[in-house]
Amino acid sequence: MATALIAIDWGTSSARAWWLDGRGAILAERAAPLGVQKVEQGRFHDALRSLLGGDAPAGVPLLACGMIGSRQGWLEAPYVDCPAGFAAISDGLARVTDAPLLIVPGLKYGDAAGVPDVIRGEETQIFGALDDFAGRKLVVLPGTHSKWALVGAGRIERFATFMTGELYAVLLEHSILGRLARAGEDAAGFERGIRRSLRPGAALSHDLFSARTLALTGELAPEGVAEYLSGLLLGAEVAAALGWVQRNGARGLDATLVGEAALCGRYDRALSIAGLAAHSGPSDAAARGLWRIAQQAGLVR
Amino acid sequence: MATALIAIDWGTSSARAWWLDGRGAILAERAAPLGVQKVEQGRFHDALRSLLGGDAPAGVPLLACGMIGSRQGWLEAPYVDCPAGFAAISDGLARVTDAPLLIVPGLKYGDAAGVPDVIRGEETQIFGALDDFAGRKLVVLPGTHSKWALVGAGRIERFATFMTGELYAVLLEHSILGRLARAGEDAAGFERGIRRSLRPGAALSHDLFSARTLALTGELAPEGVAEYLSGLLLGAEVAAALGWVQRNGARGLDATLVGEAALCGRYDRALSIAGLAAHSGPSDAAARGLWRIAQQAGLVR
Repeated sequence: MATALIAIDWGTSSARAWWLDGRGAILAERAAPLGVQKVEQGRFHDALRSLLGGDAPAGVPLLACGMIGSRQGWLEAPYVDCPAGFAAISDGLARVTDAPLLIVPGLKYGDAAGVPDVIRGEETQIFGALDDFAGRKLVVLPGTHSKWALVGAGRIERFATFMTGELYAVLLEHSILGRLARAGEDAAGFERGIRRSLRPGAALSHDLFSARTLALTGELAPEGVAEYLSGLLLGAEVAAALGWVQRNGARGLDATLVGEAALCGRYDRALSIAGLAAHSGPSDAAARGLWRIAQQAGLVR
Repeated sequence: MATALIAIDWGTSSARAWWLDGRGAILAERAAPLGVQKVEQGRFHDALRSLLGGDAPAGVPLLACGMIGSRQGWLEAPYVDCPAGFAAISDGLARVTDAPLLIVPGLKYGDAAGVPDVIRGEETQIFGALDDFAGRKLVVLPGTHSKWALVGAGRIERFATFMTGELYAVLLEHSILGRLARAGEDAAGFERGIRRSLRPGAALSHDLFSARTLALTGELAPEGVAEYLSGLLLGAEVAAALGWVQRNGARGLDATLVGEAALCGRYDRALSIAGLAAHSGPSDAAARGLWRIAQQAGLVR
C-alpha cells in the first residue's frame, strides 16, 4: 500500500519517522540522532533529508511533533491553550515554507495561580495513546520531564510536569549523593525510596539527604544508593501527582503509561505501591497521534 | 590575658581558629582555606601548624569541631545519638594522638522510621548560639545542607537536614533551569518563589519546572530565574520544616538563625512570609560552642 503520511517525532536528542499507509498502519520506520539540539540552525532541511534517507514520495504530507516546533527548532509553533482537542491542535499547525512539513503545536496550561506549564510532543503521544475519548482518562508519560495529563471529552484538560528524570541525572552526577553510589540493581532500595516519599510528611529536599546517611551507616549498599534516589524521586512525583489528580476530581482513574518500557515498569511499581492501577499505552503512541491529527487537519482521508 | 583554649571550626572547605582567654573571650582569630577536602590524608598536622601560624602556646588545649572529625578527616569521632547534651558530647570527644587536639563528635538522629540524619559541626554552633538552655528552642542553620534543630532541657533533641543549598547550586549549574538564568537581584522573583512553595499542594519537582516556564513566557526576567529558584527551594524547606516543628510539638517557637549574614537574611524573609519570627544568633557561635564544650570536658576552668 502507498505511503499516505510521513509522521515524525522530532525531539531534543533524536528524531524518528514513520511511513504510514492510507489507514494509518506503519509501513516503515527510521530513527536518527538528529534531535533539535544536535542540528545547527538553518540545517533542519538537510537533517530531514538525512532522516528520511531520500524516501519522501512527492505529494505525501509530512507531519512532525516535538521540540522541532520550539523556539530552538525549525519553526516555532506557538503553544495552544488547554483545554485543547484535535480541532484546536489542528488549527495550530505551523507550516514550514521550504518543505512540505507541518508541525504540531505544544500545549500551555495556566494553573489556578496563573503559573504556566507546557508540553511539546507529549500532546501527540497522549492523543495517540488512548483507544477512545469517552469519559475522563489519566495519561502518565515518564521521562526527563515527566508529564501527567487529564483528558476528558476529547480534549487535554490540563497537565503537570515533574522534573524527576532530570533531578535524578543531575543529583547522581553532580551532587554529594552520587559519591557513594555504584551502578547496579537493588529492587529493595528502589522500593524503600518510593515508600519513604509516599509517607505522610515526606519532603524531598530533606529525604534526599537520607540517600547519603543510609549509605554512610551501611544500610544501603553502593548499588542501592542510585536505586533509592530513583525511588525517592518517583515516589515524590507520584505522591504529588495523585494529590493533583484528586484536586481535579479524577481520583480513582487508572493510569495509561506511555514511554520507554523499562522506565514505565519502574513507574508501574511506584503507582502500584501508591495504590493506583496502571496499564501500558501503545509503544507507537506518537505515530498514532500524528495520524489522528493529520486526519483532523485533512492531510489524509 | 593568656590563651586558655584554641577553638577550631574545621569544615569541608576551610578552617577557622580562635584564641580564647580564660573567660572564653576571643583574643585573636585566623582562617585558612585548609578544609578537609583540601588537605591530603596524613597532612593534617601540617595544615594545623599552618592554620595556627606557629602561635600555639605549650599546654594550651586545642578543640575542633566539624568535618575534621569525619571519616575523611584527621580522626573519626563517631556520631553520638540524639538527644544529646554537653555531657554526651564531651564524653564523645576524640583525641588525636600526635597533637594536643580533641575533636567534637557529630550527632546522629534516627527518625520514627529509623532513617538516620547526621550533623557534624552544627551541634557546636547550636550550643554556642543559645544564651540559655531553659525551655525548648528552635535553631536554624542555613547552608549547603541546612539544619533545623530542636533543643530542650540542655540537649539537642532532634534535627533535620535539607539539601537546599546544594540543590540550588546543582540545578543552576547543571540543569535546564540554569540556561535561562543570569546573575542579578530580583526580590520580587525570590518572594514569588517562596510563596509558590508555601501554597497548599506545592510539590518541589513540579514547581521547579515553573522557573523555566515563567522565563519562557517572559514573566520572569533572566535575573529573576535564579532568585525564583532560590525562593522555591527555601520555601519548600520552610514549609516542610514547619510541618516537622509542628509534628514535634514545638509550634510557635521563634527561630534562632545561625550562619552567613546574607543567607540568614534570605531565610529571615522566607520565615517571615511563612509567619515565623526569627532572630539572629551570634556570628561566633562555633567559638562559643567550643568554649562551652571545653568547659564541660574540663579542658578549661
